[in-house]
Amino acid sequence: MKYSFADDYSEGAHTHILELLAQTNLEQQPGYGDDAICIKAQGLIKNAIKNPHADVHFVSGGTQANIIALASMLKPYESVITAESAHINVHEAGAVETTGHKINALPAKDGKITAEQIQEFIDLHFPVHMAKPKVVSITYPTELGTLYTKAELKRISTVCKKNDLYFYLDGARLGVGLTSQESDLTLPEISELVDIFYIGGTKNGALLGEAIVINRKELQDNFKYYIKQHGALLAKGRILGAQFIGLFTDNLYFDLAKHANLMAMKLSKGISQAGYSFLTPSPTNQIFPIFPNKLIDKLKKEYLFYPWQKIDNNSTAIRLVTSWATKEEAVDEFLKDLQK
Amino acid sequence: MKYSFADDYSEGAHTHILELLAQTNLEQQPGYGDDAICIKAQGLIKNAIKNPHADVHFVSGGTQANIIALASMLKPYESVITAESAHINVHEAGAVETTGHKINALPAKDGKITAEQIQEFIDLHFPVHMAKPKVVSITYPTELGTLYTKAELKRISTVCKKNDLYFYLDGARLGVGLTSQESDLTLPEISELVDIFYIGGTKNGALLGEAIVINRKELQDNFKYYIKQHGALLAKGRILGAQFIGLFTDNLYFDLAKHANLMAMKLSKGISQAGYSFLTPSPTNQIFPIFPNKLIDKLKKEYLFYPWQKIDNNSTAIRLVTSWATKEEAVDEFLKDLQK
Amino acid sequence: MKYSFADDYSEGAHTHILELLAQTNLEQQPGYGDDAICIKAQGLIKNAIKNPHADVHFVSGGTQANIIALASMLKPYESVITAESAHINVHEAGAVETTGHKINALPAKDGKITAEQIQEFIDLHFPVHMAKPKVVSITYPTELGTLYTKAELKRISTVCKKNDLYFYLDGARLGVGLTSQESDLTLPEISELVDIFYIGGTKNGALLGEAIVINRKELQDNFKYYIKQHGALLAKGRILGAQFIGLFTDNLYFDLAKHANLMAMKLSKGISQAGYSFLTPSPTNQIFPIFPNKLIDKLKKEYLFYPWQKIDNNSTAIRLVTSWATKEEAVDEFLKDLQK
Amino acid sequence: MKYSFADDYSEGAHTHILELLAQTNLEQQPGYGDDAICIKAQGLIKNAIKNPHADVHFVSGGTQANIIALASMLKPYESVITAESAHINVHEAGAVETTGHKINALPAKDGKITAEQIQEFIDLHFPVHMAKPKVVSITYPTELGTLYTKAELKRISTVCKKNDLYFYLDGARLGVGLTSQESDLTLPEISELVDIFYIGGTKNGALLGEAIVINRKELQDNFKYYIKQHGALLAKGRILGAQFIGLFTDNLYFDLAKHANLMAMKLSKGISQAGYSFLTPSPTNQIFPIFPNKLIDKLKKEYLFYPWQKIDNNSTAIRLVTSWATKEEAVDEFLKDLQK
Repeated sequence: MKYSFADDYSEGAHTHILELLAQTNLEQQPGYGDDAICIKAQGLIKNAIKNPHADVHFVSGGTQANIIALASMLKPYESVITAESAHINVHEAGAVETTGHKINALPAKDGKITAEQIQEFIDLHFPVHMAKPKVVSITYPTELGTLYTKAELKRISTVCKKNDLYFYLDGARLGVGLTSQESDLTLPEISELVDIFYIGGTKNGALLGEAIVINRKELQDNFKYYIKQHGALLAKGRILGAQFIGLFTDNLYFDLAKHANLMAMKLSKGISQAGYSFLTPSPTNQIFPIFPNKLIDKLKKEYLFYPWQKIDNNSTAIRLVTSWATKEEAVDEFLKDLQK
Repeated sequence: MKYSFADDYSEGAHTHILELLAQTNLEQQPGYGDDAICIKAQGLIKNAIKNPHADVHFVSGGTQANIIALASMLKPYESVITAESAHINVHEAGAVETTGHKINALPAKDGKITAEQIQEFIDLHFPVHMAKPKVVSITYPTELGTLYTKAELKRISTVCKKNDLYFYLDGARLGVGLTSQESDLTLPEISELVDIFYIGGTKNGALLGEAIVINRKELQDNFKYYIKQHGALLAKGRILGAQFIGLFTDNLYFDLAKHANLMAMKLSKGISQAGYSFLTPSPTNQIFPIFPNKLIDKLKKEYLFYPWQKIDNNSTAIRLVTSWATKEEAVDEFLKDLQK
Repeated sequence: MKYSFADDYSEGAHTHILELLAQTNLEQQPGYGDDAICIKAQGLIKNAIKNPHADVHFVSGGTQANIIALASMLKPYESVITAESAHINVHEAGAVETTGHKINALPAKDGKITAEQIQEFIDLHFPVHMAKPKVVSITYPTELGTLYTKAELKRISTVCKKNDLYFYLDGARLGVGLTSQESDLTLPEISELVDIFYIGGTKNGALLGEAIVINRKELQDNFKYYIKQHGALLAKGRILGAQFIGLFTDNLYFDLAKHANLMAMKLSKGISQAGYSFLTPSPTNQIFPIFPNKLIDKLKKEYLFYPWQKIDNNSTAIRLVTSWATKEEAVDEFLKDLQK
Repeated sequence: MKYSFADDYSEGAHTHILELLAQTNLEQQPGYGDDAICIKAQGLIKNAIKNPHADVHFVSGGTQANIIALASMLKPYESVITAESAHINVHEAGAVETTGHKINALPAKDGKITAEQIQEFIDLHFPVHMAKPKVVSITYPTELGTLYTKAELKRISTVCKKNDLYFYLDGARLGVGLTSQESDLTLPEISELVDIFYIGGTKNGALLGEAIVINRKELQDNFKYYIKQHGALLAKGRILGAQFIGLFTDNLYFDLAKHANLMAMKLSKGISQAGYSFLTPSPTNQIFPIFPNKLIDKLKKEYLFYPWQKIDNNSTAIRLVTSWATKEEAVDEFLKDLQK
């Protein structure tokens, strides 16, 4: 096996982050995220999003972040509107439903839903008999690597306000979204548009860890009960804090994401030049080239990746993922092997 | 207001059923469905389905029957495959999700899903990351009034067995399904094809009450705990039993359903003859004519019914429902008013 | 078998209630409790409790009323404080926990908890790590037939307000409580003290039905979603409305309860005079005499009742329950048989 | 502040464990625990418990391990029997109830329940109306630091088998239990007695991580769905595996635990010699001395620890916890300060 392009969590952590963990390792600190390390990390994040009134909490993974954040926004009879391709709808083993809530999945071209779709869905609501929509959840970038524009998010935000809905953003890969050459958004701008979102660490250089940011005041109280109740309150919360100190110092979070994008763009360009097309154009670290099945069989012997969607009897879209750790030589090698 | 065609539960119960309630009213009986009246009703139903090994339980309503039956078949990480138009997916306020389970809603022409769709969906299952499909749930007749054929149900049953899925049938309007002129199924045949189903009483002449039938042995044990836990175990279970004695004596259940169908067919025929078409052809007691909006506005002043689906800017499909209690004069009057 | 003193739901409904059901039976009415019959019943109840601003909803049974009311008051991490002997803690198959909430069960002499106990429990709360108490739930009369005094309820109400807790009352047997010779409370007084309570119909002359009363404004909105979601929204809600019209016309609710108490007091007096003592003194329709096991074996041959608690190797407390339907001759016969 | 005896998770990880994380850090590995590192760790644990047929899964924390393991053993209407002082009953914010299950908490002298208590509780079960007990959950050592003897566990195991109950063990502090001078059990012996248990890493030298061991075959299938569904399936599962390789190589797990016990015994002995008594004798790393409140006020200025239980107006039991990282000088200093 030459290299894995299967995902962006095949390696451990960026070296700097491991060093930070080691540096503070034997300090005695309070448990459950009440430590000085987490408090420092929270401060760095509040600076980065330019919202001193936000609350920041750290949890271990993306599914955890999603179910906890959504549970905090929903009454038992309320539902979440999202794209049918959303991670919460497809790849979390029904975790949101496990907490008792229906997902209203809307058709989503390129993984994105629109303000108009949301309004139409709301207009069809039949009180008492249907679960009541209360949250719109989007992923940035989407599960297909695509990006909402600032204008699109503003329209969704407006629809949410008009219909008394919360706006939630799953930022598992927020870094590659914000640093994509096609993004027209900054971190503070994203933050200002939504009520709760999370900044993904696991897929951008941390061992584990996602930072949940709560902008809306009414959602901040008692949030930690939700974390505890779902088994997500780490005794040694400090290890999440330390990693986010690393990520939000000296621009590391964005630098790592830029590298991932750079590698993906190099891959995309090479694949295009070799004459292949894509399932959907992606300006971030997940790309979906369409290859002949024979080529895929050959590549599979040396590279790890997931088949994504059958196109016809002879060809299939696959998913290639790059990350902060992707080696440029591996990309070069893959492109060379493509042309053999 | 002249008449309501809004639903099939606008009246109370068939007179015979009220009489039965009165007859046994002051007998002392054990509570919670352990009474002689329920036992007699269970016997009548087991005879009617020709399965002496079935277990029969009575609950108050259809949503209750669905969530209890499904909960008894599903582990926490398992999901239900059904039509996107299914009552459990649209009109139960997220009740199935409240019990923790994801619904996998498949596109459904005329409210029906096919064995092929189910197999394709199963083939896409990605273990651990997706909720695991375990039950196929269909409605007979569907929410659009349509009927599965015996051959279609056999194919679904085969797919279920092949993939180790349970097969569940929501029989809220089972009577009008089985007595439709287009049905090629009998009650024992339906029963034999599925693992659990329920026979709807509320929409076919009872005050309230649905009879859940459990054919599969492994699902029978401890079922009553599910009923109790969901607040569905009536202290005076006898009142459900008495009603099903009424319904399953002297063919009443089927006679009432036949009347509902007859009235619907008369309505359909008249509407067709008046030159209107239908959203979908329905051989049961719910029909969906497409009318000009102006006509609808006029009819609304004298009749109750639900608008169902916008067709274009000038016309809308509405839903007309008949029942065991529908008066033929009301049907005649409606058809006359249509042509004014 | 001569007679059953097993419970207060061995018979059907009071004749007058059956008549009311028959009277309105063939009127066409809207479904789901939006009918004129329910609206009239709601008005009668709001008059009876002297709170025109209350919301009233009807459901089928007590467990249903409890889980729905509690779910509407609790966030996912919040818990209910109640007596360890409470129906919600012991005899609802874990229904409250099924909706995700912890019950904090306090030791309860005679089935009652005190304001002091509640405050002590609150004082031990350890934020984030313990479920957060939010509702105090009492039963009036308690599961042991005992009654809180007005002063006791006021103290509990004060503790609830002080600690920002809701106060809920399970009134499955409210009638026999309020009409007991030892009660110092009226229906409007009870109602004013609590945020939500329910008036039990099933155990006081109805076929089925409990009236949930919501006094607190903030708890009224969207309550019907909870009812629907738990499968408790009857299509023919009218049948619950009709029964409560019967119960709250011409004092029937209280007259029926008085009869039950009268029969229980006659039983108690006779048992005392025959030289037996009681597990706990009860001024309502459930009494708990302590009998020698030999006597119990003899009585069991002719009467139905539940053994309640082992006292020693030779004697056991049993539960005898009277109701609106209890025949005085049966009481006389039982007392005679006791002395044989 | 001189030192914290507040808990056994005030420091990060044992140095050797950090080194292991760094060593494998940049290897590409599959996600979600399917990596070579986890597989190696699972092998080491299966050796240590002497059960090659066990399944081993890694999760982040104790509450997570408990809710996932219990959810996998329980149907919706089933409950867990445990000690009233159990972590799952008191300090997990109602997490078990959040998954829908009732906890039957039994009075527990010294944190332990007995086989006799369990049988008595089972004997009182009233089918359908009570949640059905299905799992007995104990903590070893208990939350009060006490230990079950081999004979006690065997009796509980026998009662479980007799009543068709699963036997579960919360091993958050299993290391200090097994290495206590008062333990008469080995790791393989403990493992053989129970159906599922977990080996705590967080409180014994890991950054985070608990190893769930499933001995019972029928409980092994599809267990990973539960992990995923609760947001507990780490993308980089490797970091849990690496730590357990460290803990289960060269006896590290037991050596670290022995140190914690040694420090606790030194503290205990010193406190005894200083003339103080204990709430309950504890042979493990949590001890509960009773001090005058004035002394506690003085100690609080220099040491961190939790007050545990009010004894009388002048004295309180506090909890002192030692760990693998506790410095002997800190213990000496504390004992010296005690006598000032």
